[in-house]
Amino acid sequence: MSVPADAIRATDSSYHGLRVLVTGGLGFIGSNLARRLVEDGAEVLVVDAMLPNFGGNMANLDGFQDRLKIRIANLSEADVIASLVDGCDVIFNLAGHVSHIDSMTDPVTDLEANVRAQILLLEACRRHAPRVRVVFASTRQIYGRPSYLPVDEEHPLRPVDVNGINKMAAEAYHTLYHQVYGLQTVSLRLTNTYGPRLRVKDARQTFLGLWLRRVVEGGVFEVWGGDQKRDLCYVDDVVDAFLRAAATTGAQGGIFNVGGCLPVTLTELAQSLLAIAGSGGFECKEFPPARKSIDIGDYFADDRRFRELTGWVPRVSLEDGLARSVEYYRQHLSAYI
Amino acid sequence: MSVPADAIRATDSSYHGLRVLVTGGLGFIGSNLARRLVEDGAEVLVVDAMLPNFGGNMANLDGFQDRLKIRIANLSEADVIASLVDGCDVIFNLAGHVSHIDSMTDPVTDLEANVRAQILLLEACRRHAPRVRVVFASTRQIYGRPSYLPVDEEHPLRPVDVNGINKMAAEAYHTLYHQVYGLQTVSLRLTNTYGPRLRVKDARQTFLGLWLRRVVEGGVFEVWGGDQKRDLCYVDDVVDAFLRAAATTGAQGGIFNVGGCLPVTLTELAQSLLAIAGSGGFECKEFPPARKSIDIGDYFADDRRFRELTGWVPRVSLEDGLARSVEYYRQHLSAYI
Repeated sequence: MSVPADAIRATDSSYHGLRVLVTGGLGFIGSNLARRLVEDGAEVLVVDAMLPNFGGNMANLDGFQDRLKIRIANLSEADVIASLVDGCDVIFNLAGHVSHIDSMTDPVTDLEANVRAQILLLEACRRHAPRVRVVFASTRQIYGRPSYLPVDEEHPLRPVDVNGINKMAAEAYHTLYHQVYGLQTVSLRLTNTYGPRLRVKDARQTFLGLWLRRVVEGGVFEVWGGDQKRDLCYVDDVVDAFLRAAATTGAQGGIFNVGGCLPVTLTELAQSLLAIAGSGGFECKEFPPARKSIDIGDYFADDRRFRELTGWVPRVSLEDGLARSVEYYRQHLSAYI
Repeated sequence: MSVPADAIRATDSSYHGLRVLVTGGLGFIGSNLARRLVEDGAEVLVVDAMLPNFGGNMANLDGFQDRLKIRIANLSEADVIASLVDGCDVIFNLAGHVSHIDSMTDPVTDLEANVRAQILLLEACRRHAPRVRVVFASTRQIYGRPSYLPVDEEHPLRPVDVNGINKMAAEAYHTLYHQVYGLQTVSLRLTNTYGPRLRVKDARQTFLGLWLRRVVEGGVFEVWGGDQKRDLCYVDDVVDAFLRAAATTGAQGGIFNVGGCLPVTLTELAQSLLAIAGSGGFECKEFPPARKSIDIGDYFADDRRFRELTGWVPRVSLEDGLARSVEYYRQHLSAYI
């Protein structure tokens, strides 16, 4: 399949002058996306609930606070959401809770954030911004334990935690609102994303956050299991995937895997990280019982559908991405702990 | 596969003396199930929100009010739910909103009832009744438009309305709570169920409700489309499926289709109904636009997995079932309109 012209434009100036809302825009991927959009000339409005245990961090938009609008708000009130979406050309919808463990200990709170808020947002779009393009940050988590590898989009959905079930439902709403109301929604099922502005205080966002912190501090991190294979994607490449998803004609209504570089085992990943950082150490441990029941074994994505439609490829190697990440936290760790 | 002994016992006295909670127990299937459980010697507690536009109807338990306990409550408060599940041996979990159309016009209310309440119930079970058996009333709706027929449990889930997405999430919670906490849950994906105590005031529960009302009134009902094939299951057979699901060792953690008699087209069904009733008439119409987008075409279930495990078979023919239904509403219509 040839690459559509607008997909190529998505990589440079196609967002110039567009009004873009980034939900979860003070979080990890959201803030990287917002910064890129500002550089591309978009009028950016960021909304974030800034809940204590999540990825939101004002430091993520350092240097950009005067170049975009920031609104601290929880997406729980229909009228607040209506005021946010009104007049938007594009919404990058990254707000949500991401902790597996928290979703198991407090499933109702996860539901409010990951499902109820999503319905409210989509309802607001169909009523107040029916022509807006929406890209939803879905996750590979909704597949659960893979039956085969690499995992393509036809793989059954068998989420292994409450967070995964809620993300599955939210993704289904996005598809439904396209089918029933013609809303221009796209869902990206992201694999593990890493890079600058990741939450590193603890392992709530991803294990790799805590690894990075420990390495930069010269400490020791734990690898649970170690043989599990994962593909990882550097955040700049994920940002590029979001930009292309909204800009590519023919992507609307679609659901796409977004994978990353060649899969590595967690032990290999830990070894690479140490070699690049030149500091820290790790020890392999058995899975704690609370995690064991929701671990999914190996995962890596078949994302050919997205690559072929949009021309996207990950450009940052694992080594480069880890080096940039270590460098970022060497400079900025104090803002993240 | 041979039929386990306890599956056979499920059809007679295996519920004697058991404490059983039926959520949605004043509704259509719930009330038929509660009556049967009382007859089998169970101690039955029925809970129902008795919301105006749903299937709850005090007339559904006529003659049984002194033989079971009834509690009118909404499953929205954790402490209320805890008091309900405490001490239960079995929960038949049928509470929920069933209107496709209502779920599209008010998705948040559907979410509260069909997802949030379900999490609260499961949380209450794992904390206060970890050994309880739970049978969840799921639905064929979560398959969406079939890719192949008959539809087995491996068919992809592609719900075409908000109600379907929410039921999909609720079912996934039931499976998850089995996998993670060992809760003894079973989900039954029901096809169209009909029979006495169906809501016939309007088409909110199923088109067949309104058809029955019109026929008994000697009026005319509309058939939308007409060529769509459906399997239907008489409510006594569905009740039997619930009883077997809870009583059968090996069903826990499972998801099972429950189909019915051989599929018929809606036009054939309408003709059978008129022939049996000897009154009323129908006219075929195009689908209204609001329904068209969420219609799923033909559906009938492959339910061999459930039949083989539990010994269940539908025993009431479509003709018998329709005749009993018409007779019921000839006697009781005033309580339902």
